[in-house]
Amino acid sequence: MTKIAILGYGVVGSGVAEVLHNSAAMIEARRGIALSVKSILDIRRFPGDPFEHCFVSSFDDIENDLSVRVVVETIGGTGAAYDFTKRALKSGKHVVTSNKELVAEHGPELLELAREKQVNYLFEAAVGGGTPLIYPLAQCLSANRISSVCGILNGTCNYILTRMRDNGFTFDEALLEAQKSGYAEGDPSDDILGHDTARKISILASLVIGRQIFPKHVQTMGINRVTPEHLREAADNGYAIKLIGRVTICESSPPVIYAEPHLLKRGHPLFAVDGVFNAVLITGDVVGDVLFYGKGAGKEPTASAVVSDIVACMRANDPLGGLAWYEIPVRLAQPDSIHSAPHHTFTDGTTLRVM
Amino acid sequence: MTKIAILGYGVVGSGVAEVLHNSAAMIEARRGIALSVKSILDIRRFPGDPFEHCFVSSFDDIENDLSVRVVVETIGGTGAAYDFTKRALKSGKHVVTSNKELVAEHGPELLELAREKQVNYLFEAAVGGGTPLIYPLAQCLSANRISSVCGILNGTCNYILTRMRDNGFTFDEALLEAQKSGYAEGDPSDDILGHDTARKISILASLVIGRQIFPKHVQTMGINRVTPEHLREAADNGYAIKLIGRVTICESSPPVIYAEPHLLKRGHPLFAVDGVFNAVLITGDVVGDVLFYGKGAGKEPTASAVVSDIVACMRANDPLGGLAWYEIPVRLAQPDSIHSAPHHTFTDGTTLRVM
Repeated sequence: MTKIAILGYGVVGSGVAEVLHNSAAMIEARRGIALSVKSILDIRRFPGDPFEHCFVSSFDDIENDLSVRVVVETIGGTGAAYDFTKRALKSGKHVVTSNKELVAEHGPELLELAREKQVNYLFEAAVGGGTPLIYPLAQCLSANRISSVCGILNGTCNYILTRMRDNGFTFDEALLEAQKSGYAEGDPSDDILGHDTARKISILASLVIGRQIFPKHVQTMGINRVTPEHLREAADNGYAIKLIGRVTICESSPPVIYAEPHLLKRGHPLFAVDGVFNAVLITGDVVGDVLFYGKGAGKEPTASAVVSDIVACMRANDPLGGLAWYEIPVRLAQPDSIHSAPHHTFTDGTTLRVM
Repeated sequence: MTKIAILGYGVVGSGVAEVLHNSAAMIEARRGIALSVKSILDIRRFPGDPFEHCFVSSFDDIENDLSVRVVVETIGGTGAAYDFTKRALKSGKHVVTSNKELVAEHGPELLELAREKQVNYLFEAAVGGGTPLIYPLAQCLSANRISSVCGILNGTCNYILTRMRDNGFTFDEALLEAQKSGYAEGDPSDDILGHDTARKISILASLVIGRQIFPKHVQTMGINRVTPEHLREAADNGYAIKLIGRVTICESSPPVIYAEPHLLKRGHPLFAVDGVFNAVLITGDVVGDVLFYGKGAGKEPTASAVVSDIVACMRANDPLGGLAWYEIPVRLAQPDSIHSAPHHTFTDGTTLRVM
C-alpha cells in the first residue's frame, strides 16, 4: 500500500483525496498499485469530512513518517510550499504538485534535489490542468527542435472573454459572474492580470529551452482592459481575442516570450477554444503542429493530473526521462523584434498582436 | 553510442534514418543519449543513398549483432514483421514500431515477450502518427475510467473527404488527387475501406479496456460510398462527414466499437479537423474531455514518434508504466444498442450516425 500525504486541503487538495478514494480500486486493478491517503496537513479543520481522521498538525509528522512515499503539495505559493517540498524530497519522498508558481520560480533546484535523492518531482497539473502537456513534451516530442509553444493557459480569463463576447457583458460583469460560478477566485488578480499565464508559459519555455525563464522576465498584459467593443470589433473582422502565452525559439535570435491578449484569425487552431477550456499548440521541426486541448483548471481535471503523476511515481523512477532545465541565464529578445507585424489597432487606439 | 537497426526502408523507415541523422546532436545535448543507425534491412538496394553502407541482407546479421540495442520495425503487416519482432525481443533488443496491423493482431503476445526479456515494445507511431496518444493514455490519464475514445484516425480519408467537400470532387477524383499528392497509396483499400481506422481504434480500445479487441470484430464501413451530394447535404444541415473510429465503454453494457463515416454537428470538437490532420477525443470520468490533434501520417510526423520512442527506450525501462492488454475474450455490444439514435437519412436513402 502506497501512503500519500496531502499538503493543503483546498479545492485541489480535497479533489485529490476524493479522486484517490474513488479511483483506488480501478488503479490497483489496472496498474497493480494500491494508493491511500495517510495524512493531510492544513491549518483549518473540517469536522465531518470523510478524511477527518487523516489531519495532522505539523509537517514534521509527515516528514518523519517513513510509510509516506508520496507528498502532494497543493498549498500554492513559494513560502511554506517551498520549504515543505525541499524537506519532503530530502527525506526521500516523491513530490507531486499543481503549484505553478513554485515550479516556475524554483523548478531547477527542486528537480536537481529530486535527482540527487532518486525520487520524482512531477508537476503535470501545474500547466493545462488535466490536459497532458508535460509528458508529451518530455517524451513524445523528444525527436523535435521545438520552435514555438503557444497556448490559452488560463481558464478563468478564457471564460470571462467568452462571456463578454457571447453575452455583451462588460469585463466587471463577466468577472462577477465567473466568481459566482466558481470559475474565478475572490482575488482574481493573478489570473486577470496575466501573471498565471506568464508562470505557465515560463514553465513550458524553460522545459523547451532547457534554461530557466523566470515569470518576471515574461512581457505580461492582462485582460482587464479588454472591452465588449474590442470583442465586437474583433469578431466583425473575423478575429477572436484570447489571452495567449507564447514562446518562440528561432536560430537567428534569442527566444521571445510573452503573455498578452491576442487577436487570432478564424482558422487558427486556438480560435474556437472557448469557455474554461485550455489548449496549447506546439510546433516541432519534425512533427509540425500538435495541439492539446482540455479543461485547464478546476478541482477534478487538476486532481486527474495529480493522481496520474502519483501513479507515474510508483511505476518508474524519472518518468520524465531526464528532462529538466538549468539555472543558466537566458537572453531574451523583445517580442516586437520578431513578432513586429501585424498588429491590429482598435477604434479606441488599443493595439493587440495578431496571429 | 546506441546502435539502431531499421527493418524496411520505405517511407517511414527512411524518414527514421533521416530524423536520427538530423536530430542526433540535439538529442545527445538535451537527453545525453547518442543514437546512430547501424544496419538497415531491405530487399531493395538504394545506390547513392546516404545510408547505403548500412544495408544488410539478412535479419540474422541484426539478431546476432550485440551492439544493436533498438530495432525499428517499419516493414508493416504480420508476416516477416511478426517473425523479426519476436526474434529481436527474444534476443534482448528493444523494438519500436509504426506497424498498427501487428500491434492490433499480436500486441498482447509481443508486450508480454518484451516484459519477460525486460525490454520495451513501443508503438506511439502506430496510432495518430506524430500526435502523442499512447503515452498520454498510459500515463497522464491513469486516474480516469475512460468512457469514450473517438477520433479521426486516417489522414488519407480525411484529406479525401475535405477535398470532396471543398472542391466538389467525386470520391474517385479526390482519391486520384490524394495519390498524386502522396497522401494515398497506390492500393488505397486499407485506408478507404476503413480497415486502417478499425486497427487503430482496436489498439486504443484494447489499451483502455485492458483486453484485446481484434480489428475483425470492429464494425467497419469505408468512405468509398460517400458522395459530394452527401457532403453538401450534410453541410447544409450544419454537419461535417468524417470517418470516425469510436469505442464507448459504459457500466451497464458491453463495450461498443466501430469505424464508420459519421455526421458531426458544428461545435463538436472534431468538426473542424480537416485535411491530413488526425484528432482524438478521450473522455475520462475525472478529467472530462481531452483532445489531441496533429498530423496523423506522413514520413516526418511518423518518424518523430518513432525516434521519440527510441529515446524513451534508452531513458527508462517500461516507459508505458506497465500498461498492457490481455488475450481475454471481450463480449462487444452492437453499436445500435447504445448509439441507436440519432441517425441522419440522406435524400438517397443512405443513413449515417450523428454525434
